[in-house]
Amino acid sequence: MAKLVLVVFALALVCAPVSADCTPPSLKQPGLNLMPWPAHVRLHDGRLALTEQFDIAVVTGHPGQRVYDAATRLLQHLQRRSGIAFDQHAVTTDSDGKQAQLVIKVRRPGVLKLGEDESYSLRIDSRHAVLTAEGGLGALHGLQTFQQLLQSDPSGYWFPDVVIRDKPRFKWRGLMIDVARHFEPVDVIERNLRGMAAVKLNVLHLHLSDNQGFRIQSKVFPELTELGSNGQYYTQAQMKQIIQYADDRGIIVVPEFDLPAHAVSWFVSHPELASAPGPYHLYTKFGGKNPAFDPSNPETYRFLDRFFKEMAGFFPAPYVHIGGDENSGTQWDNNPVIQACMQPAITSDTALQAHFIQKLAAMINADGKQIIGWDEILQPGLDKGAIIQVWRGKDSLYEAARKGHRAILSNGYYLDLLYPTSDNYLNDPIPPGTHLERSARRNILGGEAEMWGELVRPATVDSRIWPTAAAIAERLWSPQNVRDVAWMYKRLYVVNLELEDLGLMQIRNQGVLLRRLAGQHEIEPLQVLVDVISPVRGYQRMASGNYTTHSPLTSITDAATANPWAAIRFDEWVDRFMKHPNPDTEQKIRLQLEGWVANDQALEALIDHSPALHSVKPLAQSLVTLSKIGLQALDYIDQERAAPQAWARQTTTDFLQAREPVAATKLRMVDAVERLVVMALKTSQPEHRESR
Amino acid sequence: MAKLVLVVFALALVCAPVSADCTPPSLKQPGLNLMPWPAHVRLHDGRLALTEQFDIAVVTGHPGQRVYDAATRLLQHLQRRSGIAFDQHAVTTDSDGKQAQLVIKVRRPGVLKLGEDESYSLRIDSRHAVLTAEGGLGALHGLQTFQQLLQSDPSGYWFPDVVIRDKPRFKWRGLMIDVARHFEPVDVIERNLRGMAAVKLNVLHLHLSDNQGFRIQSKVFPELTELGSNGQYYTQAQMKQIIQYADDRGIIVVPEFDLPAHAVSWFVSHPELASAPGPYHLYTKFGGKNPAFDPSNPETYRFLDRFFKEMAGFFPAPYVHIGGDENSGTQWDNNPVIQACMQPAITSDTALQAHFIQKLAAMINADGKQIIGWDEILQPGLDKGAIIQVWRGKDSLYEAARKGHRAILSNGYYLDLLYPTSDNYLNDPIPPGTHLERSARRNILGGEAEMWGELVRPATVDSRIWPTAAAIAERLWSPQNVRDVAWMYKRLYVVNLELEDLGLMQIRNQGVLLRRLAGQHEIEPLQVLVDVISPVRGYQRMASGNYTTHSPLTSITDAATANPWAAIRFDEWVDRFMKHPNPDTEQKIRLQLEGWVANDQALEALIDHSPALHSVKPLAQSLVTLSKIGLQALDYIDQERAAPQAWARQTTTDFLQAREPVAATKLRMVDAVERLVVMALKTSQPEHRESR
Repeated sequence: MAKLVLVVFALALVCAPVSADCTPPSLKQPGLNLMPWPAHVRLHDGRLALTEQFDIAVVTGHPGQRVYDAATRLLQHLQRRSGIAFDQHAVTTDSDGKQAQLVIKVRRPGVLKLGEDESYSLRIDSRHAVLTAEGGLGALHGLQTFQQLLQSDPSGYWFPDVVIRDKPRFKWRGLMIDVARHFEPVDVIERNLRGMAAVKLNVLHLHLSDNQGFRIQSKVFPELTELGSNGQYYTQAQMKQIIQYADDRGIIVVPEFDLPAHAVSWFVSHPELASAPGPYHLYTKFGGKNPAFDPSNPETYRFLDRFFKEMAGFFPAPYVHIGGDENSGTQWDNNPVIQACMQPAITSDTALQAHFIQKLAAMINADGKQIIGWDEILQPGLDKGAIIQVWRGKDSLYEAARKGHRAILSNGYYLDLLYPTSDNYLNDPIPPGTHLERSARRNILGGEAEMWGELVRPATVDSRIWPTAAAIAERLWSPQNVRDVAWMYKRLYVVNLELEDLGLMQIRNQGVLLRRLAGQHEIEPLQVLVDVISPVRGYQRMASGNYTTHSPLTSITDAATANPWAAIRFDEWVDRFMKHPNPDTEQKIRLQLEGWVANDQALEALIDHSPALHSVKPLAQSLVTLSKIGLQALDYIDQERAAPQAWARQTTTDFLQAREPVAATKLRMVDAVERLVVMALKTSQPEHRESR
Repeated sequence: MAKLVLVVFALALVCAPVSADCTPPSLKQPGLNLMPWPAHVRLHDGRLALTEQFDIAVVTGHPGQRVYDAATRLLQHLQRRSGIAFDQHAVTTDSDGKQAQLVIKVRRPGVLKLGEDESYSLRIDSRHAVLTAEGGLGALHGLQTFQQLLQSDPSGYWFPDVVIRDKPRFKWRGLMIDVARHFEPVDVIERNLRGMAAVKLNVLHLHLSDNQGFRIQSKVFPELTELGSNGQYYTQAQMKQIIQYADDRGIIVVPEFDLPAHAVSWFVSHPELASAPGPYHLYTKFGGKNPAFDPSNPETYRFLDRFFKEMAGFFPAPYVHIGGDENSGTQWDNNPVIQACMQPAITSDTALQAHFIQKLAAMINADGKQIIGWDEILQPGLDKGAIIQVWRGKDSLYEAARKGHRAILSNGYYLDLLYPTSDNYLNDPIPPGTHLERSARRNILGGEAEMWGELVRPATVDSRIWPTAAAIAERLWSPQNVRDVAWMYKRLYVVNLELEDLGLMQIRNQGVLLRRLAGQHEIEPLQVLVDVISPVRGYQRMASGNYTTHSPLTSITDAATANPWAAIRFDEWVDRFMKHPNPDTEQKIRLQLEGWVANDQALEALIDHSPALHSVKPLAQSLVTLSKIGLQALDYIDQERAAPQAWARQTTTDFLQAREPVAATKLRMVDAVERLVVMALKTSQPEHRESR
């Protein structure tokens, strides 16, 4: 195995993990690891070397403080990555522009609003780089692109000679974090804001209230968090800090207060506003009954008016998200007072909800803000300024847009469902061939990745958001035709490392989870397993476990991610081998299969020793069994004769077994091995031999 | 190497990393990984199994909120470690005591003061556990011990049947973090407080001002941070949060404002208080001139009186640390006004400093607090209530104690100097045989680990503090005769993993640094290297580099630690082999040496490819060269004849080379290999053969 390790490693150097030459030859893109990919890129020979003399200056215009701060952060980042200590420590209005290696030209400060000019251009030659933007936000994006352009090879660190012109495809490129079901402290939010800025996401949507908790201090109604948060909430001082942190990075913070249902946390302190008598206690479970505000009670509106007035004054964004989803209406149906009030004008729960939302919208409009709500709020009579956030499907998106509402796509971007990043990546708000009128098309603002919080804690939340959100960011920023999956994964692997460098925890915290599971033993054999499994998808885990807000969330499926790199790479090698069988690709596949076989003894010993890992054993067994089948298939292929059908039939049980979910995870190299078996069955002597 | 990996791993399972059977047989201690080791431990057969029904109740007395909160945290921790979801989610006054598996009996709430009763006893049998303490602080310590007692084996998770009676040897068990030279955000401080509580440290000393920055908001003099912090400081709201977080864990926060020198950050906003005219700018370098307050200026005392009044009201601790160290007196000598004022009573800078400190002490005493200062403040006329913190050596410690001052040892506990943990561990404030009168002995409060901040940032500071501070904690808590180094390292390895579980970053952040250095390549070969090197010790790195507050601190020496586990383990195997040569131990040594040889090709390829690693190459070369020499030595030993002197002479250059510092690190397996060479030279045929 010494040899094996070395060969794999040597290959990695040439073709590091998801390799450069994995890019389909049809896609003649330069080998840069930019994400989102810019609108226009022209790569030339030549390079700008990074040295101690590297410096930055803003030479024209009034760029605003954001650009200076971002440029200073760029200096720090480049120092960290290269280990080179620059002479320049900060970029200020005093920084001398004439000799600067990166010159920034910005006409005016950015304005933090939707539809702001976010374009920029960047030219790098062997002497210096020039970043040009109309507004400060474009300059921020350009600085991020510049940062991603840093290259290294044995000769040192450098930037390529390149010309980039760039602007976003969509205005709204969001990330929602549900801090209600599990609270996420300020530092978690801040590091995610750094990640968002790195991939040009521009809206942070915080789901601040739900049945499990109320997470923002109200000074008008302090009881909301005093009684409804278990002590886990943002003070207004902390939220101010988050808003400023986001603003510094060109990101708008949109607060969501989910109404009329998903509202238990309000009713803990204000049971009189609910549609059924209290007392109410915070839910520790998920799902279940969904109590709703009493729309027949004038006090409901007086209370909400005062509350939203406070929040409208506190959050600078011009939008307030009022939720509006999943109101079952059961409480309304069972309350005779509500039923009586509905007569005769309001004939259904749907109509009553519409009525409630209209009153809410009027209230919030009066505070100078527009409402955002989930699909369900799209009912007759809704204020035209209301933005519809679509979780149920693209039909709703186009319907809203046609009805004159601005709309955001979230369906297909649910990070908690742990679909492969490629699925999220290929989910286009307006795919080619969509029949949608120009006026409606204009109403589609963009999309938003959703991190629902039932099964994440601070230790794991980064690994659900990243790096998938970077691929979604590309979908929302880059031209529609940038959609090659293999090439995306190649860049994503590198972007993932860069995100870690910005303080995100998705890689390092996996090690923590594995070390915990392994007790005091070395985790290497377990790391090999976790690189080839991923959590079950969709709502399978929620359905199979009795989860609460107190569940530990420290099992193998919490350590696993939607991006099992070894499986992704293996899959691609097999694809390539099937299209163009050649010894190099075959050798990579063989080494990987042999590596999985070689790992098995240590892995099974570790599993046997660690009680928290016992349930994982079938995964290890399937991995070694399927690896051996894959090697047999390659042997048949090498012998240039079709594999016996009987052999293939014998493998059926093994494949069935390997496809079973185990400990809420699944092995992700199964399909690729099956393709090898199919290939082996079809193998025949090459024609030139037969002709002999 | 497949075989090799598996054998090493199999060994690890039996004898996980620094192995259980590494404990010298003379030390008949039970195999528990407790740290600090309790005063009395009796281990029996039998175990209390951890199941979903595990629950905790406080059954008698008035324990105070701290104990309930700590018990709830214990529940969460045990859930995380075991993955078992308990029925009980929180420990409150409602928790039913009769059926509880862990019963807590506390007579009264803890009082957060030095000398408080911190004792506790813990009895666990197969049915339940009983924790008894006089005060709440003792109960907190007992809960930490209980947490460390969690065991696992293939059958599950359990606690051993044990009787523990415990109390600390010293009252003051501190950790100082210098947040002035590099700022450390609130979350860094909070996670370190969690680590401190885990190992029963009870004083957090924050070095809040120095030439590089002023780090706490003053509402009386807001300009101190507005002009003197580069925006990096704790608001009073944040510091309140830190103090509360510490208080919850039984930890006192002691603020230090370093005076009269180390004072540039005060003078940025108040140059009129300095002994030489301004303007002053924050230092970005370390060392250099050390401006001091003007002791002849009445305004100095008016200003400081107002400032300390504010801080005395803000910080609840009964102590204010006023520094007092390293005043060169140069500014005083050069200021004729100061010289004139000294006449005729004050005849030297030392006397002037004493005069200044006396005035400061009187001022702070009037606010109801006592002062703490470094050695230098021990001068005639010093207030007897002043506590002396000793950085220069134990003579100062005993001198202070004899003169009637309470005193704390810091000399020998400087974490920034990166001496091996064993050195810190064996540094006893009052070693056996110390001639010190009983009255003086009583004045020695304990000791404090010091994390000076010149060469650490948030990403690396944990790896300098931990796990070494855990060994220092044991020195200050446990009986004097607990001082077996191999046994300490065995437990420290496990405690290090537990500290990570509490959110400390020392293990996971090493991965981040290595991934950055390795570019996009796999880090395994580099991890092998970093496990066998450690940073140069003492002030060598500072002396050799032109470091500033802006230096990136991302090189291999920042990734390396004072505890290179592979080298520590190898060293111990060689020791054991020399005392009792046997095939098992030899096999371990051989496998490790062969592993280092096998790693070399991949390591050197990685180094060649990564510009930030080029300087590391000689380390890799020495590692493989010395590994081969070690294997040759074992061959000679196996052949049972003395190695040729000529062979040994040829290795001299290699050893010289391997001992050179490289990239501010040193290879730490050199001495052990040299011992093998010496052993090989001395090897002769065994007696029984000669007698044949």
